[in-house]
Amino acid sequence: MERSRVHKSKIINDPVYGFITVPGELAFTIIEHPYFQRLRRIKQLGLTHLVYPGAHHTRFQHSLGAMHLMTEAMESLRAKGHDISDREVEAAELAILLHDIGHGPFSHALENSIVDGISHEDISLLFMNRLNEEFQGSLSMAIDIFRDEYERKFLHQLVSGQLDFDRLDYLKRDSFFCGVAEGIVSDERIIKTLTILGDNIGIEAKGIYSVEKFIIARRLMYWQVYLHKTVLSAEALLIRILRRARELARNGHELFATPPLAFFLEKHIGKEEFINDPAVLDNFSRIDDFDIFSAIKTWSTHEDFILSTLSNSLVNRELFRVEMQTHPFPPDYFYRLKAALQREMPSLSPEETGYFVFSDITSNYSYDLFDNRISVLLKDGSVIDLSEASGLFNLTILTEPDVKYVLGYPKKLTGVEK
Amino acid sequence: MERSRVHKSKIINDPVYGFITVPGELAFTIIEHPYFQRLRRIKQLGLTHLVYPGAHHTRFQHSLGAMHLMTEAMESLRAKGHDISDREVEAAELAILLHDIGHGPFSHALENSIVDGISHEDISLLFMNRLNEEFQGSLSMAIDIFRDEYERKFLHQLVSGQLDFDRLDYLKRDSFFCGVAEGIVSDERIIKTLTILGDNIGIEAKGIYSVEKFIIARRLMYWQVYLHKTVLSAEALLIRILRRARELARNGHELFATPPLAFFLEKHIGKEEFINDPAVLDNFSRIDDFDIFSAIKTWSTHEDFILSTLSNSLVNRELFRVEMQTHPFPPDYFYRLKAALQREMPSLSPEETGYFVFSDITSNYSYDLFDNRISVLLKDGSVIDLSEASGLFNLTILTEPDVKYVLGYPKKLTGVEK
Amino acid sequence: MERSRVHKSKIINDPVYGFITVPGELAFTIIEHPYFQRLRRIKQLGLTHLVYPGAHHTRFQHSLGAMHLMTEAMESLRAKGHDISDREVEAAELAILLHDIGHGPFSHALENSIVDGISHEDISLLFMNRLNEEFQGSLSMAIDIFRDEYERKFLHQLVSGQLDFDRLDYLKRDSFFCGVAEGIVSDERIIKTLTILGDNIGIEAKGIYSVEKFIIARRLMYWQVYLHKTVLSAEALLIRILRRARELARNGHELFATPPLAFFLEKHIGKEEFINDPAVLDNFSRIDDFDIFSAIKTWSTHEDFILSTLSNSLVNRELFRVEMQTHPFPPDYFYRLKAALQREMPSLSPEETGYFVFSDITSNYSYDLFDNRISVLLKDGSVIDLSEASGLFNLTILTEPDVKYVLGYPKKLTGVEK
Amino acid sequence: MERSRVHKSKIINDPVYGFITVPGELAFTIIEHPYFQRLRRIKQLGLTHLVYPGAHHTRFQHSLGAMHLMTEAMESLRAKGHDISDREVEAAELAILLHDIGHGPFSHALENSIVDGISHEDISLLFMNRLNEEFQGSLSMAIDIFRDEYERKFLHQLVSGQLDFDRLDYLKRDSFFCGVAEGIVSDERIIKTLTILGDNIGIEAKGIYSVEKFIIARRLMYWQVYLHKTVLSAEALLIRILRRARELARNGHELFATPPLAFFLEKHIGKEEFINDPAVLDNFSRIDDFDIFSAIKTWSTHEDFILSTLSNSLVNRELFRVEMQTHPFPPDYFYRLKAALQREMPSLSPEETGYFVFSDITSNYSYDLFDNRISVLLKDGSVIDLSEASGLFNLTILTEPDVKYVLGYPKKLTGVEK
Repeated sequence: MERSRVHKSKIINDPVYGFITVPGELAFTIIEHPYFQRLRRIKQLGLTHLVYPGAHHTRFQHSLGAMHLMTEAMESLRAKGHDISDREVEAAELAILLHDIGHGPFSHALENSIVDGISHEDISLLFMNRLNEEFQGSLSMAIDIFRDEYERKFLHQLVSGQLDFDRLDYLKRDSFFCGVAEGIVSDERIIKTLTILGDNIGIEAKGIYSVEKFIIARRLMYWQVYLHKTVLSAEALLIRILRRARELARNGHELFATPPLAFFLEKHIGKEEFINDPAVLDNFSRIDDFDIFSAIKTWSTHEDFILSTLSNSLVNRELFRVEMQTHPFPPDYFYRLKAALQREMPSLSPEETGYFVFSDITSNYSYDLFDNRISVLLKDGSVIDLSEASGLFNLTILTEPDVKYVLGYPKKLTGVEK
Repeated sequence: MERSRVHKSKIINDPVYGFITVPGELAFTIIEHPYFQRLRRIKQLGLTHLVYPGAHHTRFQHSLGAMHLMTEAMESLRAKGHDISDREVEAAELAILLHDIGHGPFSHALENSIVDGISHEDISLLFMNRLNEEFQGSLSMAIDIFRDEYERKFLHQLVSGQLDFDRLDYLKRDSFFCGVAEGIVSDERIIKTLTILGDNIGIEAKGIYSVEKFIIARRLMYWQVYLHKTVLSAEALLIRILRRARELARNGHELFATPPLAFFLEKHIGKEEFINDPAVLDNFSRIDDFDIFSAIKTWSTHEDFILSTLSNSLVNRELFRVEMQTHPFPPDYFYRLKAALQREMPSLSPEETGYFVFSDITSNYSYDLFDNRISVLLKDGSVIDLSEASGLFNLTILTEPDVKYVLGYPKKLTGVEK
Repeated sequence: MERSRVHKSKIINDPVYGFITVPGELAFTIIEHPYFQRLRRIKQLGLTHLVYPGAHHTRFQHSLGAMHLMTEAMESLRAKGHDISDREVEAAELAILLHDIGHGPFSHALENSIVDGISHEDISLLFMNRLNEEFQGSLSMAIDIFRDEYERKFLHQLVSGQLDFDRLDYLKRDSFFCGVAEGIVSDERIIKTLTILGDNIGIEAKGIYSVEKFIIARRLMYWQVYLHKTVLSAEALLIRILRRARELARNGHELFATPPLAFFLEKHIGKEEFINDPAVLDNFSRIDDFDIFSAIKTWSTHEDFILSTLSNSLVNRELFRVEMQTHPFPPDYFYRLKAALQREMPSLSPEETGYFVFSDITSNYSYDLFDNRISVLLKDGSVIDLSEASGLFNLTILTEPDVKYVLGYPKKLTGVEK
Repeated sequence: MERSRVHKSKIINDPVYGFITVPGELAFTIIEHPYFQRLRRIKQLGLTHLVYPGAHHTRFQHSLGAMHLMTEAMESLRAKGHDISDREVEAAELAILLHDIGHGPFSHALENSIVDGISHEDISLLFMNRLNEEFQGSLSMAIDIFRDEYERKFLHQLVSGQLDFDRLDYLKRDSFFCGVAEGIVSDERIIKTLTILGDNIGIEAKGIYSVEKFIIARRLMYWQVYLHKTVLSAEALLIRILRRARELARNGHELFATPPLAFFLEKHIGKEEFINDPAVLDNFSRIDDFDIFSAIKTWSTHEDFILSTLSNSLVNRELFRVEMQTHPFPPDYFYRLKAALQREMPSLSPEETGYFVFSDITSNYSYDLFDNRISVLLKDGSVIDLSEASGLFNLTILTEPDVKYVLGYPKKLTGVEK
C-alpha cells in the first residue's frame, strides 16, 4: 500500500529546491506544532548575517530541506530495489525533520552562557519524547533512528553521519543564502549514487568525485563562513553579553528580559534540570532570537558599563578586531593587550578585562577517520573506505583537525606589539 | 577625475547579484551608521515568511541592492555618452541607498496602528536631514534628488518612478527569496536599454519586451506574494494586536514592551510630533522587528483575552481564514459572521468583534497612467509612451486598478452561509 | 503493478532540469534508435546561434525534456487522485518523445525549399507508424494520442495545445541556452496546478498568474528570439541558397552534396512521394544539419555567382540588412531596392534579384482563441476560459495576431530612400 | 584617456555570464573575421554530447567568455591600483580571444589522425601572424603575450597558466552545458582576489579556498566529463575512422569529402607544411565539425568494411565497450580480445584488428608542480607557493599525475576473460 504522499496545501516554496512536498499527515501536523513553528524564529547561522547579509535563513527552512532530501533518497533507494518499508521511510523523514528541534537561538553562544552541559541534540531528544507522548507513540521509530538504536543503521547515518542530509542541506542552503557559490553541492548526484551496504549507507564508485567535492565544499564553507573571523568576533561578543547579563541577574540587578529569557538568566540550568523540571523545557520552547536580541538592544542603555558597552557594540556592529593564525600567540601578547585595555577602561577589574579581550582555538575536520566513515561500493562488488577509494582522503591534511588560534580585542586598542 | 570606487573591504556578498561593491567612502560611512544598521533588523516582507519560508531578507539587503543597480545604470548611461557628473552619480547612489531608511518594522501594520498620518517616505526624509547635518551637508544633492527637486529629473525617476531601482531590486530579490521563479526580472537587460530623453529616463525600443515582462512579473508578484491572502491575514492580525496593545497601554494597563515600543504605544505620534520632537525620531531609530515580536510573544500570555488570543494566534501561526473575491461580499454576511463570533466568544462587546472579523479592499495597478510614465525612444529618434509602444499597455485591464475584496475571521467560525 | 521506472544507466544529465530519468524500457529503446539519434544532429533553433551564440541545443534534448515534463505531470495528476493507467502514462510519454521525430534540419527553411506541402508533424507521424511496425504495435496508443484520436483528450492536449509540454520545454530551454533570462518559465508551478476537467486539461485558479507569465514569456521570446530580425535574415538567406541549389541541380548542374541531400535537391518531393515511396523517408532519416551546412560551405566557391555569393554570406555571417515594422512598406520601395541591386550586380536577371531582396510578413498569436483554449477550475467547482479568468487575455492585443512586415537586402545597398 | 569600451551593438548574450561586452573596435573586427567565425562551427567538447547531451557549446563562445574574464580581471586589478596601460589591456584581451583560433574540429582526434606533429597552439600562432599582417601589426603585443615574450609575465599567465582564464572559462562553461553542477567555479571571487606580485600573477590569501575549490572542480570535471569512458570510446572510434579514411584516400580509393577535408586526407601535413605552404592554413581555415561529420555519415555506406562499420557505429552511437582501471591490464587480455574479434570478423587481417580493439593510458595532473605555480600573497606581505599556503596541495596525490588504463572493444565481444 502506497502512502498518500502529496496533498494540495502541503507544498512549500523553497528557494533552494523549488518546492518541498510535505510527505504525510503526521509530518504536516508536527510542522504546525508550536515547538516546530519556533524554528521559524531561529536563524540557521546566528550572527553570520553581519558578514553575509543574506544569511537570515532559519532552522525551520533547514529542517524542511533536510526532510526533503530524505524523501528523495528513500525514493531513489527504493527504485534501485532496496526494500524499505513505508513506516521506515516515514520514521526517517520525521527523525531528520526533528533533528534540530532542540536548537536554541544563537546556539553556540547559548550553550556557552545560559545553559550548561547540555547539547542541542539532548534537547532535541527531550522535545521528541514529549511529542511522542502527545502523538501516542507514533514517533517511536523516528526516535530510535535518531538515537541510532534502530537495527538498520543506514537510516541513522542519513540523519547523522559523514554524509548525512543535515550536512548536505546546510551546506547547500548556507552557500545559497550567503551568496558563496563555491559552497554549492549537488544533492541530486550524491543522492542518486547512494546505496545500502549491509545495514550501512554507502556510495557507488561513480559518486566518489561528488563526495570529494562535498568534503572540499564543506572545508571551504568552514573557513569562508562558519569560522570567518568577523563571525567569531560577533559570537564572542554575544557570549560575553549573556554571561555578563547572567552574572548581573544572579546578583539581583534588574534587567530587561522576556519571561523565558529571565528564567534562564536567573537560574542555573543544566542537563539534570532539563530532565527533571518540565518548566525548563516549557520555557526553552518559548525562547528564540527575538528574546535574545530585544534584550541586548535594551541593555545597550543599561547602567552597567560592561553590559551596555558590549551590547551597544553588537547592536551597532562595532565588533572586536580578531587575529587568527595557525600557531599559538605569544603568551604575553594576551597580557599586554589586557594591560592596554585597563589603561583605556580604568574602571575594569583585572577579571573583567576578559569581557573585552579573548582568546580561542577553533578546529575543523574535513574528513574524520573516527566518525562513521563513508563506504564505497566498487563495480566488482567489493567495498572499501572512501579514504582508500579516493586518493584525496588518505591524507593527514584532511583527516587531522585544522587548528587555528584566535585572539580578539576592541578596535581602539592599537599599537600593542605582538 | 575618477572617484576611487573599489576598496578591498567594501565588497559585500549578495546572493542576488553575487557581489555588491560599495561605491565610495561616504556610502560606506552611511552604511556603518546605526540608523542604517537598523535596517538589518527589519524584514523586507514582514510576515510573508509565514507563507514563503525563505522570505527573511531585510531592508538592509534591499537598499544595498538598489544602490548596486544605480551604480550599474550610471556606468551604462555614461558609457553611452550621457554626461553625468561624479557628484550626481554619488548623490543618486546615496538617495536610493537611503530611500527606505525611514521604514518601520512590518511597515504597513505599523503605519496603521502605532503611528498616525505619516508615511515611511516622510520619515526617510527626516532621517536624511539628520544625517545631512551630521555629515556637513554632503547629502544635500541626494536629498534634492529624493524629493524630486533636482533639475535632472531622470535621477529622481530612477529612485522613484514606474521603472525605478527600488522596484527592480525588490521584485528580483523578493522572487529570489520567496522561491517564486516567475517573478524574476532581468535587471541587466533593462539597465542596458535605459537612456536619457531630455531630462527624463526612457528606454530604447528594443527594451520594450523586457519592460512588459517586468510589469507582468510585478503583477504576478502582487497576487502571488504581496497580496497573498494568508499574508493579508497575518498582517490583519498584527494590526489588531498592536491596536489592542495601544488601547490597553493608553488606558493604563501594564504591558511588556521594550522602551522604544512602549514610547509609541503610550503616546499618540503623528507627523507633527515627528517633526517637532526629536525624541520621536530617536525612539523610532531604535525600533525594529525584535521590539514588535518579542512583545507579541510575551503578550500571548497576557491577562487581556483579546490581546493574548490574537498574539497567540500569530505566534503559533493559527491564522484567520480569509476569503478574497473580485466583487463585494453581501453586506449581511459580515454581520452574520460577527454574530456567530459572539456566540463563540460571549465576553466580547460588539465593537470588540472587530478584532476578530475584518473586511478590507486591496488594489494594485500594473501600469499607472497617472504616475510618471515610461517613455520609449524609437530608432527614428521619436519618443512615445510605453502604452503606445507596446500593445500590451493601452489596456484598461493593466491601467485600471485591480480591486479585490477581502474578508477574514477565525477558522473555527464554520458554517456561516454567505 | 508499478512499472519499474528507474534504471541506473538511464539517467541523463540535462542542464535545464538537472537529471532526466528515462521512464521505461520502450522509451529507452526508442531513444537508441537511429531515427531518434538523428535528432542529436538537428539544432532546435536552426541559425539562431548567429545572434545568440549559446543556441546550439538540439531537438534530441528538447524531446527528452518534453518527455520529462510529461512524466512529472502524470505523477502530479495521479497524486491528486486522477486515475491514469500505466499504459496511458507510457503512451503519453512516447507521444511527446516522438512529436518532433519528423523535424528536418533548419525546418522552416527546408519546408520552404526542398520539400513541398508536407509539414514536420506529417513526417513525425510517418516515422511513428514505421516504428510502430518495428515494435509490433506497442506505439499504437501513443499514435492515437498524437493524432488526437484517443478518447481522453487531455493527453493529446499536453502533447499539443495552448499549454503543452512541447511549448513549456522549448520556452524554458530556448531561454536557457540563448541566455534570455526573461523567457524562463516555471514548469514546476504550472505542472503542480494542472488538473483534469472532464476529459480536458485545465488549471486550478491559483495557477492563473503562472499561465499569464507563460504566455507573456512566449510573447517575449517571439519578438526577442524567434522573430529576431537577424535570425529572419539568416533564414531568408538559407531558403534562397537551397532554392538556388535545387534549381541548379534540376537543371543538371553538378553540385556537391551528401547522397540524401542530393536526393532531395534533384527530385520533387511532396506529401504523396513521402507516403508512397519508402526511399523518401529513408533518405529523410539520414539528413540533418551536417548535410545542409557542409554543402553550403562547399558551395561558397561554386561557379554559380548567385549560389556562391549567398553561401559565402551565410558562412561568414555577412547577413542581409533587415527592416521590420508594424505597417506595410511603400510598394515602390521594394522595386527601388531591386533596381539599386541590379546596378550593383548587373549580371542578375530581374527574377534573380529576388535572391537578394526579399519581403515577408511574420505574425504571432499570444493566445489563440481558435486553438484549444485553456480552462480554469475555480474553487467553487465552476470552469471558465482563461480569457475570462484573467483580465489579461480577453484583449484583442493578445488574441489577435501580432503582424510585422519585413524587408531584407544586402548591406551594401545603402542610400535607397523609403 | 579611456578607451571607449561599450558600444550598442557589441553586447552579446551568453547564458554563462549574462552579457559579454566586446571591449573595442579591434576585438569586434576580429570576431567578425571568417577565421574567428569558423569557431562557431567547432564544438568545445567534440563528441562529449554523446554522454552529456547539452554539450554542444562552441570554441566561439568559449573564446568570448575567456576574453570577458580578462576584461573583468583587468578592471579589478586596475581598481586595486595596479598600473596596466590601455594597450596592455587590449593586447591581453586579444591574446586570449585568439588563443584557440587554431583549434581544429574534434581536436584531439584530428591531431592524432589527419595532421601530424603540430599542436593547436602552433596553429593558433600561425593564424595570429596572418591576422597581424592583415591588421598592420596591431596584434604584435597580443602575440608577444601569447608567446610569453612580453616582459610583464602576468599577462601571459592569465592567458596560459595554472589559473588562467582559458581554464576558468572552460570549467565553468563545460559544467554549465553538461549540467554537471559540481564543476561550477566562481570566477568572480577568484578574479577579485587576483593580484600582481612583481611581474607575476598571484592571489591574496583570502582566495586560497576558492583556488582549492577550482582545482578540485577541475579534477572532478576530468574524471566525470573529459575522461569519461564513453567519451574516450567515441573519440577512439573517431580517430580510427579518420585513420582508415586517410589510408584509403592515400591508396587511391574514392571517398566522399568536402574539398578541405579531402586535402588533409590525401596529403601528409606536418608542421613544416603548415609553415611553408600557405594553402595548408587556407584549407585548415575552412575545416570544421561539418566537414568531418558529413563525411563520416556518408562513409557509413562505404564499400570498405572497416570504414563503414566504424562510421556506422559512431553515427548511431553504438560505441565500444570501455574498461578503465588504475593498474595495467594483463598483457594477454588484449590479445585474447583481438583473437575473439577475428573469430567475429574473419575478413580482418591481424593489423586491422587494431581498428576495433584499442588500449590507451590517460592521465591528469590536478596541480602541476612543474608548470607555472600559483603564488599567494599573505597579509604580512610575504609570498609563498599555493602548495605551502594550502595544506591541500603539498600532496603527492594532487601533484602527481593520476593515471588510468583504458581498453576498448566492440560490445558484442562478450565472454572474454580478463
